[in-house]
Amino acid sequence: MTATENLQVKLARFPDGEPTPDDFEVAAGPVPECGAGQVLCETLFLSLDPYMRSQIAGRHISGTIAPGDVMLGETVARVVQCDSGAFQVGDLVRCQGGWQQYSVHSPEALHRLPANVVSPSYYLSVLGMPGLTAYSGLIWQAQPKAGDVVVVAAATGGVGAMVGQLAKLRGCRVVGIAGGETKCRYAVEQLGYDACIDRRAGDIGWIESELDRLCPEGVDIYFDLVGGALLNAVSQRLAVGARVVLCGIMSELNSSDRGAGPHPGLWIKARASVYGLVVYDFESRRDEFIAACLPAVESGDIQCLEDCYEGLARAPEAFCRLMRGENMGKVVIKVA
Amino acid sequence: MTATENLQVKLARFPDGEPTPDDFEVAAGPVPECGAGQVLCETLFLSLDPYMRSQIAGRHISGTIAPGDVMLGETVARVVQCDSGAFQVGDLVRCQGGWQQYSVHSPEALHRLPANVVSPSYYLSVLGMPGLTAYSGLIWQAQPKAGDVVVVAAATGGVGAMVGQLAKLRGCRVVGIAGGETKCRYAVEQLGYDACIDRRAGDIGWIESELDRLCPEGVDIYFDLVGGALLNAVSQRLAVGARVVLCGIMSELNSSDRGAGPHPGLWIKARASVYGLVVYDFESRRDEFIAACLPAVESGDIQCLEDCYEGLARAPEAFCRLMRGENMGKVVIKVA
Repeated sequence: MTATENLQVKLARFPDGEPTPDDFEVAAGPVPECGAGQVLCETLFLSLDPYMRSQIAGRHISGTIAPGDVMLGETVARVVQCDSGAFQVGDLVRCQGGWQQYSVHSPEALHRLPANVVSPSYYLSVLGMPGLTAYSGLIWQAQPKAGDVVVVAAATGGVGAMVGQLAKLRGCRVVGIAGGETKCRYAVEQLGYDACIDRRAGDIGWIESELDRLCPEGVDIYFDLVGGALLNAVSQRLAVGARVVLCGIMSELNSSDRGAGPHPGLWIKARASVYGLVVYDFESRRDEFIAACLPAVESGDIQCLEDCYEGLARAPEAFCRLMRGENMGKVVIKVA
Repeated sequence: MTATENLQVKLARFPDGEPTPDDFEVAAGPVPECGAGQVLCETLFLSLDPYMRSQIAGRHISGTIAPGDVMLGETVARVVQCDSGAFQVGDLVRCQGGWQQYSVHSPEALHRLPANVVSPSYYLSVLGMPGLTAYSGLIWQAQPKAGDVVVVAAATGGVGAMVGQLAKLRGCRVVGIAGGETKCRYAVEQLGYDACIDRRAGDIGWIESELDRLCPEGVDIYFDLVGGALLNAVSQRLAVGARVVLCGIMSELNSSDRGAGPHPGLWIKARASVYGLVVYDFESRRDEFIAACLPAVESGDIQCLEDCYEGLARAPEAFCRLMRGENMGKVVIKVA
């Protein structure tokens, strides 16, 4: 352990709406001390996720970020110093390392990765929190049956891409919604979506007519990552017995305004079951999820599209692109 | 069978907002012919329910009423003529007799009441559709546990009074919301509510402060019969793991405007499970519901408050009072 500095990304100021790189500060800090019983970790990969915008706004249950704070985030890291028998130097772990090169943790805060992991970053994407989110909401909450019509907005993002692929593996008919032709083509050609609506190709009325065309019998499952007008549009097109998973409000993350939700009469008419999803509630079932998905990931039946950036200094740029919906797949920073 | 005329209530014109008695026409029509294989029934009791306002507006899944039509409605009736071996003259049945004295049915459309029924009208209230609605939503969908905080709006109505009593029998803490001091006193003193908020005693801000005071740990179950501002207010106060049963939108029945629902972020935060309830879906479990509730009804542990009017000619007046929220308990017309 010979590093003398610890590159960090801090919040410089609260963004006004959509974040810009100037809202962040990249600077070297000291490498933290590995105290008694602690473990010093070197970040290999950092996960960037839309929920971080809510942390900055003070609206997320997992933590709050204020100017001057190092940004929070989940990481895959290598143990570089250890004052605990629980880990050895060189072990790979998953932890809340934040946007920095080095972090210290108590052993209980570290989650060991399986030995001989080929793609450690997968434990931040298809086999990590986004994957668990998709699996919890789609499989455990919505319980898809073969033939169900499943609609997924943000269809090629970290969570959405996994929802779409899991639904296809269950024999569902899957319609995505994504921003731009490239994403829509990728959704159909690579992820196996039956169709994907380009939300940038028309207004909400046009999106509604596309939903009518592609889901003439209604929507059995809507996995909602975006809220807003799309949630209202899909709620008007639910089949009887529909399930709606409420998992995110990406359409409003950059805004302090909060719109309303669908009229309750729509959900009564569909006898819908609507589930609020917070992935942390399913932490105790993470091993079960990994065991269920690992074979399909290894065989390539589940593809992992990563939007990977080299170097921590690019994290602000990558995060801003994510918050503008310009990412293709799960955003990951390769830190070391 | 010697009756020569059949008093009927027809819709005279579409109400403009809140219905008035002038929107209905009471007139004698012919007693319908009991055709081959059919059963002629004489109405004893007619049930009046808020959903009828939606039928008039053409917004209900159970049927549509236009000017000139006899109003639809569930009835308890006596068989007075029968060209089928399935029933005998004198049998008591439950059927869709509508707002009239006599109606004909095929035998399959009739549901026999148990022999020796003391209070036949109960099969339109606590042991009928409103009771099944309450039981399906509270017991089967929301699954209350002892100690849960349950909030019920329209707390003394046909459905609400049953929800409140069932929740108390399950050991819940039950807070009602009702319009007026008399109803609130009745809710607490007769139905066993722990508290009841008089929604006429203040504005929505005051109701919210009352909810905060009475449910300091949040609301575990909200049985929603009213929609609108109350649904939004309660959704802001849900405990983690809350269940919301969406069962009616009484606050909007007299209006053609449709407001929005709660912001989905509220339901995500609470990890809420939200269920759209249509009682017809639980028809196959009606016997199970009656078997579960009959002992408590017979022992008086479940009370049946009926707002009973004598004579079919009073149905328009009674319905208009119901739609203004002036009823105390389940509205029933004693026709014969």
